[in-house]
Amino acid sequence: MPKRENISMSVIRRLPRYYRFLTHLKEKGVTRISSTELSVKLGLTASQIRQDLNCFGGFGQQGYGYIVDQLCDEIGNILGLSNRYKTILIGAGNLGRAIATHMQFEEEGFELIGIFDSSPSKTGTRINGKIVMDTTELEDFCEKEKPVMAILCIPREGVHSILERLYSLGVRNFWNFSHYDISMRYEDTVVENVHLNDSLMTLCYRISNPNNK
Amino acid sequence: MPKRENISMSVIRRLPRYYRFLTHLKEKGVTRISSTELSVKLGLTASQIRQDLNCFGGFGQQGYGYIVDQLCDEIGNILGLSNRYKTILIGAGNLGRAIATHMQFEEEGFELIGIFDSSPSKTGTRINGKIVMDTTELEDFCEKEKPVMAILCIPREGVHSILERLYSLGVRNFWNFSHYDISMRYEDTVVENVHLNDSLMTLCYRISNPNNK
Repeated sequence: MPKRENISMSVIRRLPRYYRFLTHLKEKGVTRISSTELSVKLGLTASQIRQDLNCFGGFGQQGYGYIVDQLCDEIGNILGLSNRYKTILIGAGNLGRAIATHMQFEEEGFELIGIFDSSPSKTGTRINGKIVMDTTELEDFCEKEKPVMAILCIPREGVHSILERLYSLGVRNFWNFSHYDISMRYEDTVVENVHLNDSLMTLCYRISNPNNK
Repeated sequence: MPKRENISMSVIRRLPRYYRFLTHLKEKGVTRISSTELSVKLGLTASQIRQDLNCFGGFGQQGYGYIVDQLCDEIGNILGLSNRYKTILIGAGNLGRAIATHMQFEEEGFELIGIFDSSPSKTGTRINGKIVMDTTELEDFCEKEKPVMAILCIPREGVHSILERLYSLGVRNFWNFSHYDISMRYEDTVVENVHLNDSLMTLCYRISNPNNK
C-alpha cells in the first residue's frame, strides 16, 4: 500500500462504513461493484468514494469497478482489523455487560481479555464466560497480560483514579463511554468517545427544530 | 431567542458537550465562568465558543463572562430538553436493556413509554419496571400512544420490516443502533445513528497508525 500519510479523520471515519457495506455485499454473493453503484447505495458521490480510496493508493479499475472481495480485504487491512489488540473492560454494569456481549471484538481488531468492576455484587459473576474481576486485581493482571486498550463503562466520577492507574500501567488507548475527557488529561492517548447522551440530546434538538437540516 | 436559522450540525453537536460541562459546573457550585476558562476546560478556543453561542443570539457579557446557571438553562432550551417526546424501544437484548436502564431519558427530552421484542424469551419480562411487549402489539400501542421516536436496538436484518410498520404508524424520528441506513430508505426521517462497530474499527485504525493524528 503506497500512500498513507496524514489521512483526514473524516475519510477514516467513512472506512468502517465501506467495510460494513462490502462485507454485506460479499455475504450476499456480489463479486463486483462500480463506484457509481457503491455511491448510490451509500448515499455518497462516486467521486467522493474514489477520492477516499485514493488516499490509500486506489483500487479498482476504470470501467470495471471494484472486486468486492478484494476491496473488502484491503479496507480491512487498512483498518488493521486482523490485529488482536488486548483489551480490558472496566465497569460491568448494564452498559459494560451489553458491550461485552454485543460486540464482536475479534472481527474488529481486538481481543477482550478481562472484565473488571469494583462492586462486590458484580465481581465473581460471569459475562460471556469471563469472570468479572475486582479492580484491585488490575495491577497484577495488567503487568502480566499487558493490555493495550481499555473500554471505560463507568460513571464520570470513577474515571479519574482508574485512568491514572491504567495510564501508569501503560494503557494508552481507550474506548470511552464515560463523560470524562481523557485526552484533556493525557495528551499521548488515543481515545474514541461514545457519548450516548450527546447523541440523544442532538436528536432532541433536531426533532425540536425540523427546519434545521 | 432571536437568530436560529440553519445552524451547522457541527455547532449543534457541540451544544450537548457545553450543556454537560455547565451542568457539572453547576453541581459543583460554580456560578460564573469566562469564555476563556470555558475554552481551556473544553479544549476549544474562546472565539469558537463565542461564535457557537452567537448562532443562538449570544449570551454572556464582555468582561464578565457567563452566568453558569443561566447559560446552562439557555442551552437546555435550545436543545429542547424540556420536551417529553414519547419514545419506544425496539429490541430488548443486551444492548436494548442497557439503553433502557442506562439513559436518563427525561433529562434529555424524551420519555420511554414502551419496550418491544419479538422473542418469547424476552416478552413479559420487566426492564426498569416496564413489561416488554410483543412486537405484534406495536400497531395497537402506537395508534393509542402515538410515540414520535423509536430506538432501534435490533440486528440489521430485522430493521426493514419493523421500520416500514413504524413509518406507517407515523414514527419519523429514530435513534438507530442498527446498521440499517434509515435515511436512505425514508428521506423525511430524522435519524441519529450510533454505530458502535464503526467507532471500534476507527479506534483500531488509529492504534494501528499512531502517526495519523
